[in-house]
Amino acid sequence: MIADYQTQCQRRVDAALNDLLQPPSEALQRLYQAMRYSVVNGGKRVRPLLVYAACEALGGEAQQADGAACAVELIHAYSLVHDDLPAMDDDDLRRGQPTTHKAFDEASAILAGDGLQSLAFAVLADERCNPHAAELRLAMVACLAQAAGPAGMVGGQAIDLGSVGQRLDQAALESMHRHKTGALIEASVHLGALASGRADELALQALQAYARAIGLAFQVQDDILDVESDTATLGKTQGKDQANHKPTYPALLGLEQAKAYALELRDQALHALRPFDSGAEPLRELARYIVARRH
Amino acid sequence: MIADYQTQCQRRVDAALNDLLQPPSEALQRLYQAMRYSVVNGGKRVRPLLVYAACEALGGEAQQADGAACAVELIHAYSLVHDDLPAMDDDDLRRGQPTTHKAFDEASAILAGDGLQSLAFAVLADERCNPHAAELRLAMVACLAQAAGPAGMVGGQAIDLGSVGQRLDQAALESMHRHKTGALIEASVHLGALASGRADELALQALQAYARAIGLAFQVQDDILDVESDTATLGKTQGKDQANHKPTYPALLGLEQAKAYALELRDQALHALRPFDSGAEPLRELARYIVARRH
Repeated sequence: MIADYQTQCQRRVDAALNDLLQPPSEALQRLYQAMRYSVVNGGKRVRPLLVYAACEALGGEAQQADGAACAVELIHAYSLVHDDLPAMDDDDLRRGQPTTHKAFDEASAILAGDGLQSLAFAVLADERCNPHAAELRLAMVACLAQAAGPAGMVGGQAIDLGSVGQRLDQAALESMHRHKTGALIEASVHLGALASGRADELALQALQAYARAIGLAFQVQDDILDVESDTATLGKTQGKDQANHKPTYPALLGLEQAKAYALELRDQALHALRPFDSGAEPLRELARYIVARRH
Repeated sequence: MIADYQTQCQRRVDAALNDLLQPPSEALQRLYQAMRYSVVNGGKRVRPLLVYAACEALGGEAQQADGAACAVELIHAYSLVHDDLPAMDDDDLRRGQPTTHKAFDEASAILAGDGLQSLAFAVLADERCNPHAAELRLAMVACLAQAAGPAGMVGGQAIDLGSVGQRLDQAALESMHRHKTGALIEASVHLGALASGRADELALQALQAYARAIGLAFQVQDDILDVESDTATLGKTQGKDQANHKPTYPALLGLEQAKAYALELRDQALHALRPFDSGAEPLRELARYIVARRH
């Protein structure tokens, strides 16, 4: 069932992203090609799914959330393009395909990433893409800028780079992930809730607790999969984190404890959703899926 | 006189930028150091000056324009950091100092640039930094996202990279510069006008004509200086554009014609300001300065 919902969200956001990535002139064709290549790549669209599902959990309609869904995916896509660069993680493959700097060149990858980031904010600010009152669109811009920026995702990547080869304790590892991946996952849920036009303080708090728990669960499961899966299933080079001496949950807690922790986080996420009715079912399904997935 | 005004604007925006670049936690110290290094570097702050001067031309106060002044400088600073990277222009020096990737490392430079871009939008969205009604702050975000993004500055850099070694005609060269540097210069003037809270359509159009003319004039003069100045005066490697076979105005028009064109653009800029009173004097001074400067 979550697979169907995911496919729906994926189609919906992919169509909207496709519209956004039309080159406005001949001279900009190559840049837009690189941006499109970085975005339209069969990605799972977990963050857009969170946007749609959070909007729906509060009784909103999917079309209210399209702009926010695009914006979070544009930020995510840009972060992957820059993360894959030789000076960063130096990855040649992403979802089984050449990374943007391999398919194009490094300069194009840097610029494509930069452009995707600007585009995310342009989308949230534009009433045609994000049909909400100015006050609400502005709250969305503020939320995404905070989550994507140096005190959020970019900060997490900096902490991650600085921690290679170091042995972090669990608190430091979680702080890194809360910045690096957690901030954008929390923002996705928050933006979806705002897009419903029905978010109150209590609902936002419950959804934040949910988002924190699944954000960590996602990361713990990623670390587990990096140890357990082979390269073909994962679509990226297996064991890469270990080979880079990156701190991981299995390395810190042991594999069995890491698996138990992922399940505990899933249960925390489900617990946070208790005040919600069946509209929150996709969010619940996602929490279950995150720790059950094999890639 | 423009030198005094520039010093005032520089002090004002530097103080505000300094406040924005305080690391929120120990773990983020190195990232914020790299961001600060990229921003707090004795830069001329031409774009903030344009913000303040456009605000003043419409009778606004400087404190109304601080947020916009910071935002345009953050975007400018991030673009320089990424532009200097080995995969892009590969510059070791910027204003006589090691570029960010030389002073830190490439990964830090990529992330610092990414973080500065997000921060620019966070500043515009935040009422404490940019004390205007939501509607106005949102218009500012939309303007900056458009100008900085793939259809603006980033697009110009992509066109520039694609044009190395090619002989562009004047129309193609101007299109490149209108994207690469012109878009952010126009946005600076537009944001300053918005910040005054007194911008009407006619004033915005006149200021846009002004901004287009000085944006081009700035670029023509830069190309002239690249031919004429020595490395010490310029603070960057002299003759670099020529050595890279980048298309330039002196190469296209000849040096004397390029100088005449710069003066013509200055006069166009002054002409556009005819409807304005003495509040526009800093804008006028700047137009004169741009084509008179030696570095």
